[in-house]
Amino acid sequence: MHFASDNWAGAHPKIAESLLNSAGGFAQAYGTSTLDKAVERTFCEIFDRDVAVFFVATGTAANSLALASFAKPGGVIFAHREAHLIGDEAGAPEFISGGGRLRPVDGPIGRMDVETLKSAIGTVTPGNVFAGQAMGVSITQATEIGTIYELSDIAAISTLCREHDLPLHMDGARFANALVSLECSPAEMTWRQGVDVVSFGGTKNGCWCAEALVFMDPARAEGFPFLRKRVAQHFSKSRFIATQFEAYFAGGLWLELATHANAMAARLADHIRASKALRLAWEPRANEVFPLMAKETAARLRENGAIFHDWRAPHWERHVAEEGESLVRLVTSFATTLEEVDRFGDLIT
Amino acid sequence: MHFASDNWAGAHPKIAESLLNSAGGFAQAYGTSTLDKAVERTFCEIFDRDVAVFFVATGTAANSLALASFAKPGGVIFAHREAHLIGDEAGAPEFISGGGRLRPVDGPIGRMDVETLKSAIGTVTPGNVFAGQAMGVSITQATEIGTIYELSDIAAISTLCREHDLPLHMDGARFANALVSLECSPAEMTWRQGVDVVSFGGTKNGCWCAEALVFMDPARAEGFPFLRKRVAQHFSKSRFIATQFEAYFAGGLWLELATHANAMAARLADHIRASKALRLAWEPRANEVFPLMAKETAARLRENGAIFHDWRAPHWERHVAEEGESLVRLVTSFATTLEEVDRFGDLIT
Amino acid sequence: MHFASDNWAGAHPKIAESLLNSAGGFAQAYGTSTLDKAVERTFCEIFDRDVAVFFVATGTAANSLALASFAKPGGVIFAHREAHLIGDEAGAPEFISGGGRLRPVDGPIGRMDVETLKSAIGTVTPGNVFAGQAMGVSITQATEIGTIYELSDIAAISTLCREHDLPLHMDGARFANALVSLECSPAEMTWRQGVDVVSFGGTKNGCWCAEALVFMDPARAEGFPFLRKRVAQHFSKSRFIATQFEAYFAGGLWLELATHANAMAARLADHIRASKALRLAWEPRANEVFPLMAKETAARLRENGAIFHDWRAPHWERHVAEEGESLVRLVTSFATTLEEVDRFGDLIT
Amino acid sequence: MHFASDNWAGAHPKIAESLLNSAGGFAQAYGTSTLDKAVERTFCEIFDRDVAVFFVATGTAANSLALASFAKPGGVIFAHREAHLIGDEAGAPEFISGGGRLRPVDGPIGRMDVETLKSAIGTVTPGNVFAGQAMGVSITQATEIGTIYELSDIAAISTLCREHDLPLHMDGARFANALVSLECSPAEMTWRQGVDVVSFGGTKNGCWCAEALVFMDPARAEGFPFLRKRVAQHFSKSRFIATQFEAYFAGGLWLELATHANAMAARLADHIRASKALRLAWEPRANEVFPLMAKETAARLRENGAIFHDWRAPHWERHVAEEGESLVRLVTSFATTLEEVDRFGDLIT
Repeated sequence: MHFASDNWAGAHPKIAESLLNSAGGFAQAYGTSTLDKAVERTFCEIFDRDVAVFFVATGTAANSLALASFAKPGGVIFAHREAHLIGDEAGAPEFISGGGRLRPVDGPIGRMDVETLKSAIGTVTPGNVFAGQAMGVSITQATEIGTIYELSDIAAISTLCREHDLPLHMDGARFANALVSLECSPAEMTWRQGVDVVSFGGTKNGCWCAEALVFMDPARAEGFPFLRKRVAQHFSKSRFIATQFEAYFAGGLWLELATHANAMAARLADHIRASKALRLAWEPRANEVFPLMAKETAARLRENGAIFHDWRAPHWERHVAEEGESLVRLVTSFATTLEEVDRFGDLIT
Repeated sequence: MHFASDNWAGAHPKIAESLLNSAGGFAQAYGTSTLDKAVERTFCEIFDRDVAVFFVATGTAANSLALASFAKPGGVIFAHREAHLIGDEAGAPEFISGGGRLRPVDGPIGRMDVETLKSAIGTVTPGNVFAGQAMGVSITQATEIGTIYELSDIAAISTLCREHDLPLHMDGARFANALVSLECSPAEMTWRQGVDVVSFGGTKNGCWCAEALVFMDPARAEGFPFLRKRVAQHFSKSRFIATQFEAYFAGGLWLELATHANAMAARLADHIRASKALRLAWEPRANEVFPLMAKETAARLRENGAIFHDWRAPHWERHVAEEGESLVRLVTSFATTLEEVDRFGDLIT
Repeated sequence: MHFASDNWAGAHPKIAESLLNSAGGFAQAYGTSTLDKAVERTFCEIFDRDVAVFFVATGTAANSLALASFAKPGGVIFAHREAHLIGDEAGAPEFISGGGRLRPVDGPIGRMDVETLKSAIGTVTPGNVFAGQAMGVSITQATEIGTIYELSDIAAISTLCREHDLPLHMDGARFANALVSLECSPAEMTWRQGVDVVSFGGTKNGCWCAEALVFMDPARAEGFPFLRKRVAQHFSKSRFIATQFEAYFAGGLWLELATHANAMAARLADHIRASKALRLAWEPRANEVFPLMAKETAARLRENGAIFHDWRAPHWERHVAEEGESLVRLVTSFATTLEEVDRFGDLIT
Repeated sequence: MHFASDNWAGAHPKIAESLLNSAGGFAQAYGTSTLDKAVERTFCEIFDRDVAVFFVATGTAANSLALASFAKPGGVIFAHREAHLIGDEAGAPEFISGGGRLRPVDGPIGRMDVETLKSAIGTVTPGNVFAGQAMGVSITQATEIGTIYELSDIAAISTLCREHDLPLHMDGARFANALVSLECSPAEMTWRQGVDVVSFGGTKNGCWCAEALVFMDPARAEGFPFLRKRVAQHFSKSRFIATQFEAYFAGGLWLELATHANAMAARLADHIRASKALRLAWEPRANEVFPLMAKETAARLRENGAIFHDWRAPHWERHVAEEGESLVRLVTSFATTLEEVDRFGDLIT
């Protein structure tokens, strides 16, 4: 029962096969091959507009380079306190953006509260050289804790961004999971709500290694090839990423895999709701479920083969766990089986 | 007839198959899986000592992070004027090392001349805060132009490094090609001659994407995980690189592929020697051949299907090409066929 | 009635005269002159040990370079949420330290609470590459809001630093004001309590421009000249700073000026205590006083010639001001006159 | 006989007096005082156009921040191989510009050759991500070796800059010396020839510490306050620089001092021309003279009280010195006396 992380899974067979099938033959390097170009066009179709696409090595690279693309000296980025780029990227956003500062913004269930964001932006007033300058806002979709921003939430944040002339970035490490949860199109979840740049993740959803930074407006990407090169994220055999994305999109595989992962999470949540020993800390919306349980229960589950991580208490609800309780994270993926999920269900009845 | 670059080839079937075969199952992420650990041990065996190994996304990442690992404020790195990190990495070494300076050192056939290097190091004297401080030396093996440093050349440079307390880095993007050309062991080509850190490239020699930074002395790698993380080069599904290296090393595949590439280059050189229309600019030692020919000849060869790049005149022999002549680069790889090589041979008789 | 800031004052006549008196003659540049060396020795006497002293242009430079001197990739510095380097230095600490992160720590009356600090350090656990690595702690003495750390407070923080192997920096932009308030020696306020590096400010206390970074253990300063040079803070006519410090220390002028500034602040506080219209937000300990008053009162005082800034509500006591009240800052300096202070007193009776 | 450097002199009495005279009274900090504003207007008058002026701590800061103001990722700056920012600033330009590369350009008597510059720019072709991107050109006026660019030389370089859309920076650490040598106006030496940004130095010509970065077009300076702040070069008591510049410009003092320094250099050159033991390596045009002499002669002069530095052989004329000869640098300043110069003359007859 593997619920530790969606990056503990390997690759979907179709993704791995694509790497085998493309292995032969010669092709231009550094992203200029026919396949690279074709996959870029697929991205344009998926987003229903001309976008600029850049493959990079990791989600951290995509996030950090997004910030770098709108960097300013003394620049400040606003993101949720629990955002991956604040909590788990070890200074890469700061370094790659040339010394930017990440300003944590609070808000319940992993989402920035618009009023709190507004007030945070207000502390960095234009022309006050001492405070630095606001340079952008980043949201995570799905969030680090398996919730999602509704389309109207995104629109409200982007409206605020427009008022302050700030670009809006979306960390889409779990883009597909949010998308199928919202049952909308990529365009609706992004630029139609005012998102400017997307870290588009394929790795957590069945690829070996496929991350891209997608600029909704290609004009924003001017000069970006140099930014990417400068952090050594320009692959020579770039088609090894292109071919993964090709297989990922083909026949809607990506949506199918995310739908499966979300369904497995929903079923886990059902088991938990039915259990007397566990309770949901909040409602899951994507492929992560956060139950609370007695520490002894957690220990017993692990002894019986369930693999999962404890989770730090979110700042916005300090009392989510009671004395003696653990908050844990259960992550599902394309590779999660119904059998595993139900076995977990059996253990908690 | 594909002689443009060894990164125009895809992946060797055994490498691509390894990615398919490892796709199933769950494993710990971020380099802590059983497979990652096993491949690290293989590196230790290959280098005949305990080394510290870190996978990264590109050769530029490996080179730049090597410099970052011995960075100093105002630091100066010495490398051959034609080195990849000076000519082709667009400021990544400077940025990733926190503002280091690359000091070009001259020398014939792509190799630093020891006396010239000595004199260059001498311009950055310890304690002179105005000139900055020497922080390391980098050699490329095989060089950018298909030549190699003899073991005694490496030893002479490392002796100079020791005298100035400078670490010695080897850019081994074509490590295997140099190794089989020298018919020595990895240990002999590296730490036994005083090399401290190696950018170990697998991508140009048959992998999809497999680059590693190898510290001969693990003590040098203390704190390195943070340096790598800070440039977003820490793969979550790290085993997708590990499995490539596993297949690469299994049964000596890597040496076999490099031997083949070098043999194809040698045969190309034979054809050129036999030709009246072409002449060798210098003797090839690895998998790159640099002939001179009339511009018309180059045009005719391309019309007949040969793909290759013009090459800039090396600084150390400005008159290598005569009026109306082109210097071109022919690169072979694991994927080059005897048929292609001989077809090229036929075209130039 | 100038209470806007201690940097609105010019220079004490003796400081300015020293610049006139030293103007003639030739001397070695870049800090190697006889006078520079003599002033360095004076610093050693004042701190009662061999210290390493480096002049820099601004307090922000001293603070940022202190952080840079113990920088690590992915490094995190802990400082009070209201610290100058977090609130007023526009990203200089982040940039100059090569991408460090400033982690705000809470605590009442402008001072970090030790338990809160302990818990903050605990979130950056050694070996967890995702969270980055703790690299140091910074305290401000006197604090941004005119309070001071008692010697025992400093000792408690440095004990915590030792447990985590972290250097302790003191931002001493108002070093002298704190010192005379505590009635102790520089050694007692710094290294005897475990402080490692001090930003030693002279500018706010009567110099034109005299800031120094002082390493309690010169071994910590190895390589520092390159760090300073790299941010262009190495003065050629360094003696123009040396001569200011010479005059500053001569006959205890610095202590005399700080004593005066503090006395003026204390007298202001007395006036406020006696007033019905104003009340002290907290007890002043150095040369800054923070009264609360009705907005109308603040307006009236300004109309009558009092110059002062509103102050943002400190995070640790959100309700310090009641509806319709302003929190304002009154700063005194060597140049504040008794007449000004009493005139202010008259206005508020 | 002090000919070591123009920064060994202290300050001109009028400059030092200005610091004494301005010491009293209160004024707004951080460059917003009446005096700061008045001095900015004086700069506009002197340059005969609206310019944007920013005070900084050192010439290295001015140069490095100029580069930072037109920084690009992977950016390359072209400057003469002997330029101060390449030879003497210890990586500050690289660090402050966020990792820029300084590309040395050759040319005789300390000046870039336009054809060589053209060819150097040509190696960094737009769109070639591997080579980085050209970001600007820097000239030094007067040069590091006491020569000057004629107005037509500057115009030729700026024409080339326009063709490649590159800004042109002038390192004017010895701006005044060049200006009086050319007998033209500041406008003629700068923007009328296409110069965009000037490092305007006052320190070497009689100030204690007065350096400014001057943008010919204020639109170029947008966002610059944050760049300056980020390297901690924003003085609180900014008027201590303003008052120096006020005295520097008053009654043409600055031109008078530079005229004197140049005249002293010219007289030194006359003495050398008349001497059999010394010969001029090249014709001096500002306040530096470079004679060649037997090593024994140099030793004898030093024994007799002459203070000067040996100078490294310029790359463009390797054989300027014969066997056994020394190339030395003699620098004059506002503080050099006729008596010193003639005493030196007597020693070499």
